[in-house]
Amino acid sequence: MEDITIEYLEEPSLKNPIFIEGLPGVGNVGKLAAEHLLGELKAKKFAEIYSKHFPPQVVVDDGGIIRLVGNQLHYVKRKGDRSDIVILVGDFQGLTPEGQYELSDFIMNTILDMKVKRVYTLGGYGVGRMIATPRVIGAATDKSLVKDMKKLGVVFPKGEPGAGIVGASGLLLGLGKIHGLECICLMGETSGYFVDPKSAQSVLEVLQKALGVELDFGSLEERAKHIDQIASSLKDVEEEAERKEDLGYFG
Amino acid sequence: MEDITIEYLEEPSLKNPIFIEGLPGVGNVGKLAAEHLLGELKAKKFAEIYSKHFPPQVVVDDGGIIRLVGNQLHYVKRKGDRSDIVILVGDFQGLTPEGQYELSDFIMNTILDMKVKRVYTLGGYGVGRMIATPRVIGAATDKSLVKDMKKLGVVFPKGEPGAGIVGASGLLLGLGKIHGLECICLMGETSGYFVDPKSAQSVLEVLQKALGVELDFGSLEERAKHIDQIASSLKDVEEEAERKEDLGYFG
Amino acid sequence: MEDITIEYLEEPSLKNPIFIEGLPGVGNVGKLAAEHLLGELKAKKFAEIYSKHFPPQVVVDDGGIIRLVGNQLHYVKRKGDRSDIVILVGDFQGLTPEGQYELSDFIMNTILDMKVKRVYTLGGYGVGRMIATPRVIGAATDKSLVKDMKKLGVVFPKGEPGAGIVGASGLLLGLGKIHGLECICLMGETSGYFVDPKSAQSVLEVLQKALGVELDFGSLEERAKHIDQIASSLKDVEEEAERKEDLGYFG
Amino acid sequence: MEDITIEYLEEPSLKNPIFIEGLPGVGNVGKLAAEHLLGELKAKKFAEIYSKHFPPQVVVDDGGIIRLVGNQLHYVKRKGDRSDIVILVGDFQGLTPEGQYELSDFIMNTILDMKVKRVYTLGGYGVGRMIATPRVIGAATDKSLVKDMKKLGVVFPKGEPGAGIVGASGLLLGLGKIHGLECICLMGETSGYFVDPKSAQSVLEVLQKALGVELDFGSLEERAKHIDQIASSLKDVEEEAERKEDLGYFG
Repeated sequence: MEDITIEYLEEPSLKNPIFIEGLPGVGNVGKLAAEHLLGELKAKKFAEIYSKHFPPQVVVDDGGIIRLVGNQLHYVKRKGDRSDIVILVGDFQGLTPEGQYELSDFIMNTILDMKVKRVYTLGGYGVGRMIATPRVIGAATDKSLVKDMKKLGVVFPKGEPGAGIVGASGLLLGLGKIHGLECICLMGETSGYFVDPKSAQSVLEVLQKALGVELDFGSLEERAKHIDQIASSLKDVEEEAERKEDLGYFG
Repeated sequence: MEDITIEYLEEPSLKNPIFIEGLPGVGNVGKLAAEHLLGELKAKKFAEIYSKHFPPQVVVDDGGIIRLVGNQLHYVKRKGDRSDIVILVGDFQGLTPEGQYELSDFIMNTILDMKVKRVYTLGGYGVGRMIATPRVIGAATDKSLVKDMKKLGVVFPKGEPGAGIVGASGLLLGLGKIHGLECICLMGETSGYFVDPKSAQSVLEVLQKALGVELDFGSLEERAKHIDQIASSLKDVEEEAERKEDLGYFG
Repeated sequence: MEDITIEYLEEPSLKNPIFIEGLPGVGNVGKLAAEHLLGELKAKKFAEIYSKHFPPQVVVDDGGIIRLVGNQLHYVKRKGDRSDIVILVGDFQGLTPEGQYELSDFIMNTILDMKVKRVYTLGGYGVGRMIATPRVIGAATDKSLVKDMKKLGVVFPKGEPGAGIVGASGLLLGLGKIHGLECICLMGETSGYFVDPKSAQSVLEVLQKALGVELDFGSLEERAKHIDQIASSLKDVEEEAERKEDLGYFG
Repeated sequence: MEDITIEYLEEPSLKNPIFIEGLPGVGNVGKLAAEHLLGELKAKKFAEIYSKHFPPQVVVDDGGIIRLVGNQLHYVKRKGDRSDIVILVGDFQGLTPEGQYELSDFIMNTILDMKVKRVYTLGGYGVGRMIATPRVIGAATDKSLVKDMKKLGVVFPKGEPGAGIVGASGLLLGLGKIHGLECICLMGETSGYFVDPKSAQSVLEVLQKALGVELDFGSLEERAKHIDQIASSLKDVEEEAERKEDLGYFG
């Protein structure tokens, strides 16, 4: 068995494609953003990636039908001379550091074959507290990209992210830089405690300007409201517990 | 040393074989069921599988004789045009995710060589509470199999198993689907706290209809009674402890 | 870099050699026994085994000189038609299950090249309590060996060791059985809390009869006395603490 | 993807080079010392080492520009017949034991190609308490090196370091010895609680004599003062807490 296998459903011929990665991670921001983009742009799946670096697991849908876990590549064709788009989503990132490197290297080679020149990786930036208006923190492979992103509202605060960028969103930038690609990581601020559709929306608001597309955020806003309700009822429970403790009750 | 080696004691010529997997897992349901089936159908061992993905360990029998841990393949020949049966049991599943993938891929290639077309994987579905009458939860590679299994009493509750199916019982389905096999996972509900012969019996009651065999459940029922006794005396001890705590004693 | 490398200081021509393994493990019984045997039989080191399956570490001697950790092979030549002896000792066992398999397989191939026909692996059997007179528990690859060992005082209690034999002492038996070697594991009972020279002596008392050698146990007895003193002073401290607790003092 | 790749920015022709390693470790002593040396000797980077044995991560600089984590080789040319110098620094050591072995073996082969004859590895020796005047503990591949180092003030206390030397600083010595190189490990005593510039300075004070260079320690002394302030305010907080506890207050 190969460590990583790719099965093409189709081998689309793409024009100057831009690559976008959104895999599970902090607050699932990248995954939410990329999946929302898939739906909005009516992207079409063209490849399945399986690997022993993913958990040994199948997922089961509501009808009882199974599917081996993996990552999936989708494409979006665009009119005129606008770049086509390739979007990577998936159930998991690689489980081990070695697995992460091998998967990102595999993806990198796949997109180099497709003549990708620009990469956006999407993720969350965990700040450990609830955020009303999440900023989008950026990192990139060169100064001109930083300048471009600042114009779109992305911030590059000194010393952030302090721990660097871990996982596929980081590695694809690092490997892309070695291969001479223009790579940008967009990280939405997020508490890190919940799945965070609001942070995903912040990231997509930058991305829609960068890609020149228009996205509807209705469904993400719905999900964000739902998460806010959960968060706020948890907070009530917690405050109640703290109040009791202060009065000398024992939880 | 190969990562996985198979030693054939015999290379049986089998007619349209059905493959059944029952390795250790939640409540040891799959293993109990498959081992009971071995005995009832007087299956014959024909291959030993060793691997560095298993623990580095030998087991010792009551006479002091050792045996390297592994998985074993057995076969059952059946009369007329009824499919023969191949059953996989063993001491362990692979220890690591990569090991799980490599072992399941190895098994898959082995059964593809034998022209297996249908696969049943057996397991437990942990529900975290004692279950009087365990249901059998199913998952399969296509809709017609789901329909067939429903007729045999298997249930496919929406959203279950929520976490997917992890390990050999899942991977063999996932890999089987890619290779175009008909694959079904039968999971007996189980507390997950004990080895669960009752759950194994539920699984086998479905399987005997699917295979067209008749099984005697006497020995499984005996073991189930024994486990029930242990569970109920543990419960007594626990309740006693709780009572004392309520009265202000310290355990 | 090879996963495992062996450096021969000498390639001795050995007559019908018996192989003895004594690596670190429970109570360090196997290691203590094998190292005592080395000294008593004036064995000569002839090979160093290095591997990335060992910790990435050097040891430093009292003069400040380092040595990469590894395993070492020694030999003992014996007069007349008595079998020569090969003894394996070392700083560590393999760190991972895969490493254990690869190292044991490497050792097995090395001793098969030397025409070894009989293997003794030495270890401790942890019983979780102090043992005044440790028994030697056995396990072997066939019934006649069990019979022979019983004559030398080795016991084979039904159901022990319940968890099988883990690590090099087990694997070398399991792999040896597949290759048709006569293999015996001798496990001295030990608390598992301390390095246990007394248990090592019990193992060696069996082995000296099996090998037809005479060993002096003076130094092991010295070390055992020293350990007994430590154990008994720890016990005093503990009893004192318990007494205080009973009187209502807090730790 | 290769497990380890090296990218040469330049392939300097070096005269009888001495190799110095200073990677992250206890108190970051080795890394601090090697990086200070880089600056003082105006060393020039000539190679980047990337590996899947490092964390899957990029670091981000203050301008928002990323860089894949790795190790870096630098060189210093010296006049006349004085040996040139090669210095290894980096973001991380290998994450796993196997990774450590593979990386150290790779480095060893790289420096053997450069005809390196002498190796200094730099590190910290954790003693678990604050140290006013850190000694430099040594270990080496032969007795004459021990003698030479004693003359420079290095100490070789019997039984220290008791646990041997773990990681790159140890492995490069162990592998170097096998290849016949003269290797010395210099370990500055350090609490192990803080990054320790004072300990790094102690190590460099030995090294400047060994290399025949003169180093300015101003910046290290500044950093040491800063760390001392942090350590001493932490101590105040702790003592305050202890005092309160003694008076019956709770934390």
